[in-house]
Amino acid sequence: MKNVVVTDPPRADPAIAGALGEHGVSTVHEAQGRTGYLGPQFRPAWSGARVGGTAVTVLCWPGDNLMIHVAVEQCRDGDILVVATNSPSSDGLFGELFATSLRQRGVRGVVLGCGVRDVAELRDLGFPAWSTAVSAQGTVKATAGAINVPITLGGQVIRPGDVIVADDDGVVRVARREAEGVLAAAARRTHKEALSREAFAAGELGLDRYQLRDRLAALGIEYVSYQKYAQAEHDEP
Amino acid sequence: MKNVVVTDPPRADPAIAGALGEHGVSTVHEAQGRTGYLGPQFRPAWSGARVGGTAVTVLCWPGDNLMIHVAVEQCRDGDILVVATNSPSSDGLFGELFATSLRQRGVRGVVLGCGVRDVAELRDLGFPAWSTAVSAQGTVKATAGAINVPITLGGQVIRPGDVIVADDDGVVRVARREAEGVLAAAARRTHKEALSREAFAAGELGLDRYQLRDRLAALGIEYVSYQKYAQAEHDEP
Amino acid sequence: MKNVVVTDPPRADPAIAGALGEHGVSTVHEAQGRTGYLGPQFRPAWSGARVGGTAVTVLCWPGDNLMIHVAVEQCRDGDILVVATNSPSSDGLFGELFATSLRQRGVRGVVLGCGVRDVAELRDLGFPAWSTAVSAQGTVKATAGAINVPITLGGQVIRPGDVIVADDDGVVRVARREAEGVLAAAARRTHKEALSREAFAAGELGLDRYQLRDRLAALGIEYVSYQKYAQAEHDEP
Amino acid sequence: MKNVVVTDPPRADPAIAGALGEHGVSTVHEAQGRTGYLGPQFRPAWSGARVGGTAVTVLCWPGDNLMIHVAVEQCRDGDILVVATNSPSSDGLFGELFATSLRQRGVRGVVLGCGVRDVAELRDLGFPAWSTAVSAQGTVKATAGAINVPITLGGQVIRPGDVIVADDDGVVRVARREAEGVLAAAARRTHKEALSREAFAAGELGLDRYQLRDRLAALGIEYVSYQKYAQAEHDEP
Amino acid sequence: MKNVVVTDPPRADPAIAGALGEHGVSTVHEAQGRTGYLGPQFRPAWSGARVGGTAVTVLCWPGDNLMIHVAVEQCRDGDILVVATNSPSSDGLFGELFATSLRQRGVRGVVLGCGVRDVAELRDLGFPAWSTAVSAQGTVKATAGAINVPITLGGQVIRPGDVIVADDDGVVRVARREAEGVLAAAARRTHKEALSREAFAAGELGLDRYQLRDRLAALGIEYVSYQKYAQAEHDEP
Amino acid sequence: MKNVVVTDPPRADPAIAGALGEHGVSTVHEAQGRTGYLGPQFRPAWSGARVGGTAVTVLCWPGDNLMIHVAVEQCRDGDILVVATNSPSSDGLFGELFATSLRQRGVRGVVLGCGVRDVAELRDLGFPAWSTAVSAQGTVKATAGAINVPITLGGQVIRPGDVIVADDDGVVRVARREAEGVLAAAARRTHKEALSREAFAAGELGLDRYQLRDRLAALGIEYVSYQKYAQAEHDEP
Repeated sequence: MKNVVVTDPPRADPAIAGALGEHGVSTVHEAQGRTGYLGPQFRPAWSGARVGGTAVTVLCWPGDNLMIHVAVEQCRDGDILVVATNSPSSDGLFGELFATSLRQRGVRGVVLGCGVRDVAELRDLGFPAWSTAVSAQGTVKATAGAINVPITLGGQVIRPGDVIVADDDGVVRVARREAEGVLAAAARRTHKEALSREAFAAGELGLDRYQLRDRLAALGIEYVSYQKYAQAEHDEP
Repeated sequence: MKNVVVTDPPRADPAIAGALGEHGVSTVHEAQGRTGYLGPQFRPAWSGARVGGTAVTVLCWPGDNLMIHVAVEQCRDGDILVVATNSPSSDGLFGELFATSLRQRGVRGVVLGCGVRDVAELRDLGFPAWSTAVSAQGTVKATAGAINVPITLGGQVIRPGDVIVADDDGVVRVARREAEGVLAAAARRTHKEALSREAFAAGELGLDRYQLRDRLAALGIEYVSYQKYAQAEHDEP
Repeated sequence: MKNVVVTDPPRADPAIAGALGEHGVSTVHEAQGRTGYLGPQFRPAWSGARVGGTAVTVLCWPGDNLMIHVAVEQCRDGDILVVATNSPSSDGLFGELFATSLRQRGVRGVVLGCGVRDVAELRDLGFPAWSTAVSAQGTVKATAGAINVPITLGGQVIRPGDVIVADDDGVVRVARREAEGVLAAAARRTHKEALSREAFAAGELGLDRYQLRDRLAALGIEYVSYQKYAQAEHDEP
Repeated sequence: MKNVVVTDPPRADPAIAGALGEHGVSTVHEAQGRTGYLGPQFRPAWSGARVGGTAVTVLCWPGDNLMIHVAVEQCRDGDILVVATNSPSSDGLFGELFATSLRQRGVRGVVLGCGVRDVAELRDLGFPAWSTAVSAQGTVKATAGAINVPITLGGQVIRPGDVIVADDDGVVRVARREAEGVLAAAARRTHKEALSREAFAAGELGLDRYQLRDRLAALGIEYVSYQKYAQAEHDEP
Repeated sequence: MKNVVVTDPPRADPAIAGALGEHGVSTVHEAQGRTGYLGPQFRPAWSGARVGGTAVTVLCWPGDNLMIHVAVEQCRDGDILVVATNSPSSDGLFGELFATSLRQRGVRGVVLGCGVRDVAELRDLGFPAWSTAVSAQGTVKATAGAINVPITLGGQVIRPGDVIVADDDGVVRVARREAEGVLAAAARRTHKEALSREAFAAGELGLDRYQLRDRLAALGIEYVSYQKYAQAEHDEP
Repeated sequence: MKNVVVTDPPRADPAIAGALGEHGVSTVHEAQGRTGYLGPQFRPAWSGARVGGTAVTVLCWPGDNLMIHVAVEQCRDGDILVVATNSPSSDGLFGELFATSLRQRGVRGVVLGCGVRDVAELRDLGFPAWSTAVSAQGTVKATAGAINVPITLGGQVIRPGDVIVADDDGVVRVARREAEGVLAAAARRTHKEALSREAFAAGELGLDRYQLRDRLAALGIEYVSYQKYAQAEHDEP
């Protein structure tokens, strides 16, 4: 771990990041070819938020939030703070005072590969947070780390300036240079889903809409009545 | 895994399934002799729902929701879709579009031994879902599975037509042929609990109401004052 | 495990316990030198509660809630029931009927190192519960245990009469004899945090407020522009 | 849970069970269409054993091994004892004394959906055990259960008399009535694998042996040189 | 966490500690009334060791092994080093160089509520280690902790000078003042088990040896032939 | 996920990779500044192996090993196959037949972020494997993936041609271009550790060797006799 603070990395356009946020995690994940999702272990501290912003990345030592203090100064309007620890930790590296500081700078939320605390206060503030744990466990400020270097969270590489989208489904990353293209694909997908929603609400089946019936036969899937099946598969205790 | 779609299995009476749903998971679980509970890993995607319905069972390949498309067509009014994967997976096999389709058919909810997505949309729709994960991770439609065969989830065998009851405590299964008897037992238990609730609210103790005091003595449980205990058990650092 | 019910242990002052509750888990944890937190596995059954009270401790056999019935009689106004099992278990040892009984006695909440059930009913009652699982799994009343002996939960020793504080961040314990001192420290910390909150809302940075800039240099942390960094660290696929 | 001891269930032929054991878990799992595997959480207490036998099933209360004492009497030559608990538990329900008793009766091993203890002694005895935990935690003998009823472990239903095969890869179940057919299929598979092993050792590729090259094209998989790929996908920090 | 090094705590007699080690974890755990076991998450780095010694306790910050360096000086012949971290961590705080140092001082082993590394070297050295993880993740030496204060591991309080027994079944603690009494109880139990082993090897059943048959009837356990059971419980698919 | 097979990526020098393997995981991890470790969830299928080689990377769909067949052809002497799945899976994607094929090509081992099977056969073959699970669960060959693209495992980005070192402590990655420098640093560290080992074996303390005593004072760590401590910290039950 090189102890470096990289300043002023290029960011994706914050308006594009915000627009991706409105499409939501599942749609954006699909729109970029089912990539970029940080996995089910990232959960919102409180439910109902949906945001998109540009990543400021932080690499901390477990149980040590010194580098988050350093990171605050590097944040600006439209950013989302993204924090990894150097090894697994559930400690609460982030709470309400950081949120107050970040909100003052226009930051839209925080994603932590460790713990968050002050959950009630964050909900009251309306400051969104996603994390792999909720923990009051306090931290020290003793060990160096890095800001705005590539980090990995949930199997995804996050570079500074990448777009982060988060909602009740979790967190997805969009590479900075692909943000515009993914937004266009997300818009197409949202439109297509609206049509499908209408069709499904009217009773059309996915089997027909996605033309899956032929595939069933090709895969050797057979339809059999319960009576016939029950005779063949008679269970015993 | 046999690739079969079993059609029109007999279902428990949907009215009985609904009535069991009103009693709730813990009461139904107790009413059938503390059996049928799928365990603490099944959690609601959003809290506050309570349903009872008849199972349509689905067996999918992990990361593949083809068979859910097949299952929709087999669902009818009063059903609950119940999905297992052939091996452990947290991927989000089910989301809002499926919910739209199922709601149109009168389906009351979904239970998944894998991930669910579109949590915010499901909450807005009021379509209840229980699962072992929330995950935006998308899926393919490439591999065969089975519909309306017995599946196991959380150590419980679920057969098509069984009753599924789910609420904030999780999910319980009632065998189709036992549904009527369990409903009667649940009603008796609910009545008995109402009396107990009243007694406890008035200050009666469980020790007396359930006549447990004799058992304590038989088990060798002794009462001792703090002073006496503190003298005997003086700790040291 | 000695099968003993220790009666009338000295308790911390319930007014002090209540006042600690108002400061909340993270503040109290910090105020006593970052000690006493039970860890991220203890979660509220429903969110939004914040309580402080005095511990009545219970040691149960897994899957057996006999001793909770015994404990109810030992509880009084201002207490919080704290339950450990002798080995790991997720079973639902506590539900709505116990809550009714405890509320009648003035008990402020329950903390369980196992499962809780009747989550919807507890939320409706407004009776707060923290646990390591939600589970409808029912229990027997067959095996002895102990009341008001020291127990450990989440790596913390809890003695009868200790203060328990719990909110959406989890659960923290304050030793009985230290409660008054910790309350004073928590008040100082709350005051100090209020000043910091104001400063951060006005744009002051933690780096300056906590005088961390010198430490960064001492730790060898370097600031480098993105352009320079990008030239040095050119990635390759 | 009905408190019943079912006596003398029909068993699969112990010679067939033993022969299946020689084929091993992965081969038998494949031979019966990739079904019956109890999952990765079942691990051997000591490595190197490989057995096949007929199931005597036991359902215990967590933390209570009374029913294993009952089960011993129901075991006979060629059996494997298979133990589930009514809810999740890691306690050590089985140890060296039980192994001594079972070995005297010709039992070939034990599979536990909970903990095992006396690992060193079991290894010295050469008595094979698979379990979901190693735990010295002792148990009581207070609560009823059942013998030779269907149980589920790792998502598989195990009926008395079914074949259990276990080795360093875990545990697989073969339904009693299918044992003979699965043995034939396993023998065919073992033979086929021997031919493949020889071919692979001689340098043939799976792509050719299993004729997968056409599938790659159909799936849109492209081959590209590193130089071309590196130009297109230039990473940045 | 008070930053204190407590010097020269009284220890249990090392000969008694060694003798307890020979009885092994499961026997000692039973001999002291099924208490003191640290749980199934503590596993040996290599299998086959069995030790007993007196605890030197260490409390470290996660990811920081400074205090282990301090602890080495406090260790003497017959000790076992016991390390907890202030919050959950899997980092490898202990490896071969520490083992070399400790062995030179007559230390019998190490127990860590975090990670261990250099597993191959520890096995070659014959230095036993139990831990909750194996991890090469390196650590810093930046944050204070404590030596020879009470710590908790796996729900057990360990005080300096307590006896630690560890083998392939895990780790158990015996309170210093109870060590002599527990050794006597363990000897009685080992003797009793030898008799039981002989009886079981000769075919006696636990049901008879422990006089459990009456209990079965009292618990309502019924014996039923498979034929009768199969008729009553006819399964269906 | 782009469906691409990148051919002939540049590799680190296989001799350097092999030499790094001899230094082992913990030493290499430290030598590159405590980076690159894949974490404690990667465990050897059998213990005692230690290897270093160059990565051929594979990205598979969960439950689908088609791309491993494709990867075999891309492997050559000195390589280590490194497999990630697109979402969490424990299925056994790799077994003995693949090992036979890879060994024929001079491949030194395999690392899987999912399951491995045929553990006994791999041990007999002496083919080393590290994985996050052991599972017999079989797979299909239906879905596309990628070869020799960057993948992430355990929070580390692995590019084709990077060096992989693995032993009983787990797995560490060294970037291709840094391999030579890290080898030199590892050699220096191994030499330094040999001197330390000798010093520790002779009784020198780490406190002195690493000059830590001043730091203790600076951190406010106090030494206190047990008698004094016991008076101050008198516990109570």
